[in-house]
Amino acid sequence: MTDVVARLVDALPPDEVVQDPDVIAAYARDAADLCPVGEARALVRARSVASVATTLRLAHEARCPVVTRGAGTGLSGGANAIDGCLLLSVAKLDRILHIDRAARLAKVQAGVLNGDLDRAAAEHGLMYAPDPASRDISSIGGNVATNAGGACCLKYGVTGDHVAEITAVLADGSIIHTGATSGKNVAGLDLNRLLVGSEGTLAVIVEVTVRLLPRRAARGTLVAFFSTLADAGRAIVELGSSASLSRLEVMDQTTVRAVDDLLHLELDRDAAAMVLAQADTADAQAIIAAAETTCERHASSTVFTTLDESEGKVFMQARSAALPALEKRGPWLLDDVAVAPTRIPELLELCARAANDHEVVVGTFGHAGDGNLHPTLIYDGEDGRRRALAAFDAILMGTLELGGTVTGEHGVGLLKRPHLERMLGSRELQLMRGIKTVFDPRGILNPGKGY
Amino acid sequence: MTDVVARLVDALPPDEVVQDPDVIAAYARDAADLCPVGEARALVRARSVASVATTLRLAHEARCPVVTRGAGTGLSGGANAIDGCLLLSVAKLDRILHIDRAARLAKVQAGVLNGDLDRAAAEHGLMYAPDPASRDISSIGGNVATNAGGACCLKYGVTGDHVAEITAVLADGSIIHTGATSGKNVAGLDLNRLLVGSEGTLAVIVEVTVRLLPRRAARGTLVAFFSTLADAGRAIVELGSSASLSRLEVMDQTTVRAVDDLLHLELDRDAAAMVLAQADTADAQAIIAAAETTCERHASSTVFTTLDESEGKVFMQARSAALPALEKRGPWLLDDVAVAPTRIPELLELCARAANDHEVVVGTFGHAGDGNLHPTLIYDGEDGRRRALAAFDAILMGTLELGGTVTGEHGVGLLKRPHLERMLGSRELQLMRGIKTVFDPRGILNPGKGY
Repeated sequence: MTDVVARLVDALPPDEVVQDPDVIAAYARDAADLCPVGEARALVRARSVASVATTLRLAHEARCPVVTRGAGTGLSGGANAIDGCLLLSVAKLDRILHIDRAARLAKVQAGVLNGDLDRAAAEHGLMYAPDPASRDISSIGGNVATNAGGACCLKYGVTGDHVAEITAVLADGSIIHTGATSGKNVAGLDLNRLLVGSEGTLAVIVEVTVRLLPRRAARGTLVAFFSTLADAGRAIVELGSSASLSRLEVMDQTTVRAVDDLLHLELDRDAAAMVLAQADTADAQAIIAAAETTCERHASSTVFTTLDESEGKVFMQARSAALPALEKRGPWLLDDVAVAPTRIPELLELCARAANDHEVVVGTFGHAGDGNLHPTLIYDGEDGRRRALAAFDAILMGTLELGGTVTGEHGVGLLKRPHLERMLGSRELQLMRGIKTVFDPRGILNPGKGY
Repeated sequence: MTDVVARLVDALPPDEVVQDPDVIAAYARDAADLCPVGEARALVRARSVASVATTLRLAHEARCPVVTRGAGTGLSGGANAIDGCLLLSVAKLDRILHIDRAARLAKVQAGVLNGDLDRAAAEHGLMYAPDPASRDISSIGGNVATNAGGACCLKYGVTGDHVAEITAVLADGSIIHTGATSGKNVAGLDLNRLLVGSEGTLAVIVEVTVRLLPRRAARGTLVAFFSTLADAGRAIVELGSSASLSRLEVMDQTTVRAVDDLLHLELDRDAAAMVLAQADTADAQAIIAAAETTCERHASSTVFTTLDESEGKVFMQARSAALPALEKRGPWLLDDVAVAPTRIPELLELCARAANDHEVVVGTFGHAGDGNLHPTLIYDGEDGRRRALAAFDAILMGTLELGGTVTGEHGVGLLKRPHLERMLGSRELQLMRGIKTVFDPRGILNPGKGY
């Protein structure tokens, strides 16, 4: 193992292997706080699929762990270095290889940023639907590796629903191709879906063919404020059951105040919750009008609607600013829990109770229509941190009691490992670990992360 | 192994183990012709999940192969008996366990018929979208095990897109639960999607929680006839690229004539192809009008449109009658190929060329909007059968040259094994087989089928 870096230096283009500790440190972690970070042996900034394959082949021979990273925007520590690992960055694999307008397919390298892909699609009148809040700074490879979500999912589904084909490098350096461009494909086990969400543990994703859709903008937007979380929750359930909305988001009072402090939008700072809904179809006006009636029936204190696209954008930006706004309040710990959408009132209540019980500030926001919330715990000092962790744990345990999942769209990484073991049966975990061994018999790919 | 049947007789309720050779023979094959059928040791008609678990546990101990079957409507020999196997029927696991109207979820046992589930959903104003042509006679377990398609897929996706959770029994008799009812879930590897389409090789699916949708009917229907396949193909590509249609189907002249002989609908028997399109949204009238213009631009000989739901149904029934109508022409061999939807003109041409080159009658129909066609070869006598097999092979090889898949929605079973090996790389096949070994270390579940 001692000579793996030397062998990489020999085998790869000179600027692709980095041994400068300061540069390595800058690549050693993702955006999650409170997750351990180890010391990497070296960093490879691969510029070609061949370099990825060479790196893995040599690491495999040396049994050296490899932690792959894209843009490093992950929120669960999945890309954090472990001691003695190689860091493998695919950020420079950043070419859009091909856009087929008629077939509505784009083939891109893993390091292409989600927002760049969407802008390129827009030039053809198309869109790349998956829209994690990080879309301007997160890359497709990482989006696929975590099966990233976003606000679009209510109508358009998660990242995996838009992945037609993947090219990936196995631990031993061999290259595989999965999936198909046909609308349907049942030729063998669905390796494509298995790679989606595998968090760098099965293979290194280097190229992805994604499906594009005809471009659509929001044609109608509703913003409603509620005096109680319970009212907001009931309104959300009813709004969601209509199935016509393209987005259905929520922010609690703590989040609304933080966003308003940041953007000065004159939001209702006294409301317990703000609900945002959008529709992007021809009948958006009728859908938004019906949504307004629904909110009023559930005792909304104020409802604002607009058919103006740019006005709608401003409100969605308020929602997108939730995390940046809360970050300004102090050190934070972001959670990512999801339940069946009809149980969102209970999940909102659970987050508020955890804040109260553990005396910690919690800003809760998220994709209410999908049942997916991001309670964000703001803490201060060692005691605050201890209380934040207790609240974090209480929210996760409560989510499991609601039949939910410990991660809706951010992945397990390091952050959720203990909770995953409580969620899954030992047999299911055993199967996942067995599958990893098939892909990566020496266990070099992101060991200790995920399942 | 000799005493596995005796042990099953001891362990299971008396009427669940069948040793009568005539009854066993009736359960020994699915609906695919030309696939080998072996001789089963016994048949278990399980009435409970516990019986499935007991059967597998005893089979595992005895290393006795198990071939699981639902309704037996499969079209690739996937449920055909192999010599010395146990046949395990889950058809009597036929209870709809729960429908949650608000959450739009239904939990059903594997033997519930697709059509029965959809009718039960209709009582709640909901629908179960996946609609294989066999929906009135095929069961959910089999639909999930083959990731069945249908005409709905253009808009609503395949079976796997509607599966929230699965309960399955592993080869050793232990029970696993996969998936989640939340809209999003990234807690570990996606075992749920891995079971979808696994054709009875990984586990026996016993319960499935499916997602339901608000019920929608076709609000507009178009039927267009074309003098050439090329015109029809170009019209299909353009119609598909609008992304607003809920269905987009095609039938060639041979199929149109067979259907017309059966149903006497006064279809245009001289046309080279008939295209059917439907829309189910509020703006269906505009969508169908635009589709009509598109067809005319591509030299359609006749176009008929209607906003009447029942008239639309009659035309879709014509499409559903394609296979039954062709079956009346003689022994048949049904293929199931798929390409990127923009390559449908080439696939239509390929099927016609194969018919011509090998002097065999081919009726081609299918889900044109998904790029998924079912060329059906009608043959007579030993020489005709030989020519049909040659044409079948030519269509599959040509599909691979078009970048397509050897099975879009029917599965590999026995029928497509040789072609799957030509489609997939050896490394990908190796991974699939490795995964099987993780789930089924003794290789008792449907050995020799699929990948």
